[in-house]
Amino acid sequence: MVKIGLLGYGTVGTGTAEIILDASGRNNLLREIEIAKVGVRTLDKPRSPQLPTGVLTTDLSAIVCDPEIDIVVELLGGLEPSRSLILKAINNGKHIVTANKAVIARHGEEIYTAANQAGVYVLLEGAVGGGIPVIKPLKQSLGVNRIQTVIGIVNGTTNYILTQMTQEGADFAEVLAEAQKLGYAEADPTADVDGYDAADKIAILAAIAFNDRIKREDIPCEGIRQIDATDISYADSLDFVIKLLAIAKANPDDDSLQVRVHPTLVAKDHPLANVNDVYNAILVEGEPLGQVMFFGPGAGKGATASAVVSDIINIVGILQTSQTTQKLDPLLRCPHEHFTQLTPIAEIVTRFYARFLCRDVPGVIGHLGTSFGNHNVSLESVVQIGFRNNLAEIVVVTHDVREGNFREALKEIESLESIDSIPSILRVL
Amino acid sequence: MVKIGLLGYGTVGTGTAEIILDASGRNNLLREIEIAKVGVRTLDKPRSPQLPTGVLTTDLSAIVCDPEIDIVVELLGGLEPSRSLILKAINNGKHIVTANKAVIARHGEEIYTAANQAGVYVLLEGAVGGGIPVIKPLKQSLGVNRIQTVIGIVNGTTNYILTQMTQEGADFAEVLAEAQKLGYAEADPTADVDGYDAADKIAILAAIAFNDRIKREDIPCEGIRQIDATDISYADSLDFVIKLLAIAKANPDDDSLQVRVHPTLVAKDHPLANVNDVYNAILVEGEPLGQVMFFGPGAGKGATASAVVSDIINIVGILQTSQTTQKLDPLLRCPHEHFTQLTPIAEIVTRFYARFLCRDVPGVIGHLGTSFGNHNVSLESVVQIGFRNNLAEIVVVTHDVREGNFREALKEIESLESIDSIPSILRVL
Repeated sequence: MVKIGLLGYGTVGTGTAEIILDASGRNNLLREIEIAKVGVRTLDKPRSPQLPTGVLTTDLSAIVCDPEIDIVVELLGGLEPSRSLILKAINNGKHIVTANKAVIARHGEEIYTAANQAGVYVLLEGAVGGGIPVIKPLKQSLGVNRIQTVIGIVNGTTNYILTQMTQEGADFAEVLAEAQKLGYAEADPTADVDGYDAADKIAILAAIAFNDRIKREDIPCEGIRQIDATDISYADSLDFVIKLLAIAKANPDDDSLQVRVHPTLVAKDHPLANVNDVYNAILVEGEPLGQVMFFGPGAGKGATASAVVSDIINIVGILQTSQTTQKLDPLLRCPHEHFTQLTPIAEIVTRFYARFLCRDVPGVIGHLGTSFGNHNVSLESVVQIGFRNNLAEIVVVTHDVREGNFREALKEIESLESIDSIPSILRVL
Repeated sequence: MVKIGLLGYGTVGTGTAEIILDASGRNNLLREIEIAKVGVRTLDKPRSPQLPTGVLTTDLSAIVCDPEIDIVVELLGGLEPSRSLILKAINNGKHIVTANKAVIARHGEEIYTAANQAGVYVLLEGAVGGGIPVIKPLKQSLGVNRIQTVIGIVNGTTNYILTQMTQEGADFAEVLAEAQKLGYAEADPTADVDGYDAADKIAILAAIAFNDRIKREDIPCEGIRQIDATDISYADSLDFVIKLLAIAKANPDDDSLQVRVHPTLVAKDHPLANVNDVYNAILVEGEPLGQVMFFGPGAGKGATASAVVSDIINIVGILQTSQTTQKLDPLLRCPHEHFTQLTPIAEIVTRFYARFLCRDVPGVIGHLGTSFGNHNVSLESVVQIGFRNNLAEIVVVTHDVREGNFREALKEIESLESIDSIPSILRVL
């Protein structure tokens, strides 16, 4: 039997126990696992599934030091005490399974370094995309390609909000309130709606896909608070939907990477455009493969527990076939060792959508064209969509342009007499 | 170095060599692989990539016996000599990587049994879904779930034809001719358009997902030759698209499985409905996971080579970490040992779409209702769509019904005076 210690017995923890304790009809390796210890904050609460006496404990530190335990499954979430417990477990020779994107995105370096020194695995399929197998396929299957891009819809809350805004024509604030009522958004929605959760996840995906460490704090990150129903409707009429995308992209000219999170116009016939509600999807593009996409439930008890337990049985399978004193499987261990340079946002090349409120319609299109031209911004389309408070509303979609040039053009345009304001600026995939 | 022997140097073989011989920017394990031998039919043809002298040989049998070679990569396709060479290689202790769905679907039993006895792996990611990682995720990640269904669009040719028929309103014969011109369909299109290729692939997927051996010849299989532009257009007006689906489904009441291939009406908001052209997708549903879908290029040199090389490096990784004399990894070896019972098609429960040409409109709807009622077929909708040659065209969609009952009702309906003919009968997902 392989003995595991669970840190945390909340939603994902109980989901994990439910799978392991009800093994019939599932992979036979589940019968080789014993839940030896489960660390919780208090012993007073009733727990389901129930565990044998002595399994529950409030001494989490004892679990990560327990010589009986082979695998520590960290399901506490958050940075501390998760980070310290994981490091302590590694130093005690335990393999780690975690669904904690925040601690890996922010403290991955010391965790991976410690794990490689100790000769243990740190598996984290549940940290990104809930139940969608994506981390292991990236490590084991897609790495023979030269990866060019990884683009994910990796936050279910914001995808639900944007889907509702699109389908109902509703405003952000009202959909957020509804999502909070339904339990799809937290009381404090910051981590989701401001894109921080998505940034944690793309930091993890990019590190694996491009075999480089990523400084989480260097990832430019825009959320969806400023998305207006107006822009969703204009995007629709231009055959786009708006999605919060987490993007990692190899720059063709050098070794540097672009990693960023922002709301993005996605063409309706793009595979990511049909990923709606709380579903997640991760699209990977590589040479010579082309595009593959992984789609599924990005969160939830059963989905995340499925990913966590799959990591556990992967380690169980390895423990059955090789001695622990041997080398780690090069496809499952963490191979990257160096931080890579992230491209500053001003240097990325992308298309833009911008909406202008203008005073003088006949003149303004010429002025816009001139200002954009002054900064080498070439326009794909200029559409006058309507009127709002006696101001003409003009929407512009650019060709690919260096972001810095586009921003400089906007500065010039803002100072034009004929421009009242620029309510929206969005990137286009 | 791990030495591999390639059997075949056609499209996928040269694609495989291109990845291995150009390792920069890809997984480092590629540098541990040496292409030691490549078996071809003739040495006279120019080959690209070029191989060192002595690597190319016409003696395929010598490759599978060569004591230097660790992994035999079978890329010949077809049943023989692939089957014999694979078995011989296994008996000589070689691990096998193959992209040959036909030989695995039809001779999997003896191949897997021999491999388990010899203690070698048979990996076949390239056999289903081209470059889409789906075999390994099924084995390593999804098996902790109780798998309920696997539904695939696994044949690019038929998906291309159906997509073109849908988008252009064109007939089967004319789109097939166009597809043959473009190289998307073979001169003899039987294996694709009659569903045999899809049946091979679902046999393989079902065996892995449900951990049971599948008798390929027991899989009911309908192709797309009889699909009429009329039905595509009626399906569209009912908010469906028509896709050739390969379906494997656990029967909830017993241990038996449904496995079948047939054109199917798929609701437009279903994830599989948006999988178009030569793309493939495999949807897997399990408890507690829910639905995940894998999407990507289902064929082509680079895509299939990506899958083949990923299998190779998986074995290389294992060879680096454990002695070959040790047990096989239980998550990568073939675990199933017994054939399962497939449900006869008359016993499956599904929805149906049927189109009737009728003489007497006012009376016929009552007659249809009565005949269906006599056989416990309950109707979801009855739509009179139009007239054709003075006959009224009526389309019926049923609720879930036992196929046997539905067929008996049709027999009764065929004999009705008011019914001219029943040009189309299709299942509905």
